[in-house]
Amino acid sequence: MKRALFRQHGNPADVIEIIEEDDPIPGAGKIRVRNSVMTINPADLLSVEGRYGTEPLSLPATPGVGAYGIVDMIGEGVTRLAVGDAVLPIGTGLWADTVILAERMALKAPVGADPEQAALMRANPGTAYLLLTDIVDLQPGDWVVQNAANSNVGRMVIRFAREMGLHTVNIVRRADVVDALISDGADAVIVDEGQDIAVAIDQVAQVAPKLALDAVGGAMTRALGAALATRGTVVTYGLLSGQPNESDARDVVFRDIRLRGFWLFDWFQTAAPEKIQALQRFLETKLIEGVLQTDVDARYPLVLIKEAVAHAARGGRNGKILLIGDSDA
Amino acid sequence: MKRALFRQHGNPADVIEIIEEDDPIPGAGKIRVRNSVMTINPADLLSVEGRYGTEPLSLPATPGVGAYGIVDMIGEGVTRLAVGDAVLPIGTGLWADTVILAERMALKAPVGADPEQAALMRANPGTAYLLLTDIVDLQPGDWVVQNAANSNVGRMVIRFAREMGLHTVNIVRRADVVDALISDGADAVIVDEGQDIAVAIDQVAQVAPKLALDAVGGAMTRALGAALATRGTVVTYGLLSGQPNESDARDVVFRDIRLRGFWLFDWFQTAAPEKIQALQRFLETKLIEGVLQTDVDARYPLVLIKEAVAHAARGGRNGKILLIGDSDA
Repeated sequence: MKRALFRQHGNPADVIEIIEEDDPIPGAGKIRVRNSVMTINPADLLSVEGRYGTEPLSLPATPGVGAYGIVDMIGEGVTRLAVGDAVLPIGTGLWADTVILAERMALKAPVGADPEQAALMRANPGTAYLLLTDIVDLQPGDWVVQNAANSNVGRMVIRFAREMGLHTVNIVRRADVVDALISDGADAVIVDEGQDIAVAIDQVAQVAPKLALDAVGGAMTRALGAALATRGTVVTYGLLSGQPNESDARDVVFRDIRLRGFWLFDWFQTAAPEKIQALQRFLETKLIEGVLQTDVDARYPLVLIKEAVAHAARGGRNGKILLIGDSDA
Repeated sequence: MKRALFRQHGNPADVIEIIEEDDPIPGAGKIRVRNSVMTINPADLLSVEGRYGTEPLSLPATPGVGAYGIVDMIGEGVTRLAVGDAVLPIGTGLWADTVILAERMALKAPVGADPEQAALMRANPGTAYLLLTDIVDLQPGDWVVQNAANSNVGRMVIRFAREMGLHTVNIVRRADVVDALISDGADAVIVDEGQDIAVAIDQVAQVAPKLALDAVGGAMTRALGAALATRGTVVTYGLLSGQPNESDARDVVFRDIRLRGFWLFDWFQTAAPEKIQALQRFLETKLIEGVLQTDVDARYPLVLIKEAVAHAARGGRNGKILLIGDSDA
């Protein structure tokens, strides 16, 4: 089997390599999956650079949190999954053509789904769905504000929010993406050009938002909090600025503005099985309806990992970069 | 009646004045209270300086959140309180010898209690009790960390925590207060001399704290969060640094470290009556047991408000500064 690996943090294209290993055998309660598609997300690149969460990363480490594969061996006591099942692995370390997983850390892929769209289904759309449903109790007519709105998570937030009867204010850095977000269903798009973002949100939101989704951090977190209704919540799920989240202490003390975090990996490890199943049903439905459709800019075999991550790190892409597993693995 | 007032923000001794007004008449559901003792807290001075919450403060405004007084007139429909009752008013604008309050915004003073200690009973000890009991579910043996530990709130946190079987790590700026905190029951005291506070907390806490109490803000908030156990909560209840609260985004996202606020005034406006009664019972018991005993450095008649606030603003005090109402008001 082949696996991507980095032994030290640094520029992904420099530090990532492919190693060959013997095929592992799944222990009790575990399954072996042959990945045919693996996704490259911004968080993967951050993890290689050493700018992401430290806990899962003792070095050397393998990145990757999204994939599609086929179960080809099961350990003792595995009951829900069988050899031949198409699955979406949950976890980290998925940039490998073969992975061992606890049975509960793999969801069945929707029957007949396109493997690429299925591989992309969980991480970004799942995060978007849970950000909207698992943190704050929102009702139709409520407003939500988010930054990094042109990310894949951001685009899914816009689409899901519209279906739920929620309104979104969306902050982006590039004016050329505004039309795409509007056609996804955005109620308002703010192009961040250094203006007072809290004021800009106030001007476009008909009602002060109850929820802010923050992938940026720094002073942006404070601006989002300042624009929220009393007792509103800012949820940070990304680290794009690399800066500490700021909160205006007066908003925290006097308006009960709260700061929370969201991490999909942690959610899967702690959520009740019914909640995981509900997420899966939602995502499968949306996949079939075409709501999750995500553009793919390029595909690389796993052995060309350096070229793949270099492409993923470039601006101006027109979609996701995918890794493809060897068919003879 | 006499009332303290400021028409613009500024140095309290400069901008505060006393005005004379006709005695107000309580409307339906309201009571009139003659305050004999009014407390001066750091938050009062901040509010005059314009560095506190903005919501209650349209100018001109009257500061003051703690007092002891006697009900001398009641409006229609008032049933729980009667003329002659000694009460502790709840709310802002209490630096006046006469105030009108909704009936629910006044608690009966404990029978036989010293008026000064009773006036001091609610704001700081009440905040301390609620910080320990109303935010996070703590069990005996759990650790709590706080800054501004030498404040009156901080001292009460130490005393209550010890009684509840909780352990405290206490951050102060002056080495000369360490002994007093230890004798209050502090498990550890850290003198902030610019060292890495998160590391210092780790070194003295036998278990990572679940709760951090923050009256300072700025980078201190981030250090507290970094020292907490996964899923721990930082509660900000003060604005001493005047800086935005910082949170390490990796702690927020990957360790689910949460930031919340606490404001006693808001708590009283939103808490269920049973919770308010439970707080009152706790504070009365502790007052009678002598646990709340707070030193008083000086007493000023309300008309000497400028001298009183100047004294309260000076460092090196040996206790609280109190305002005393005219006996003939």
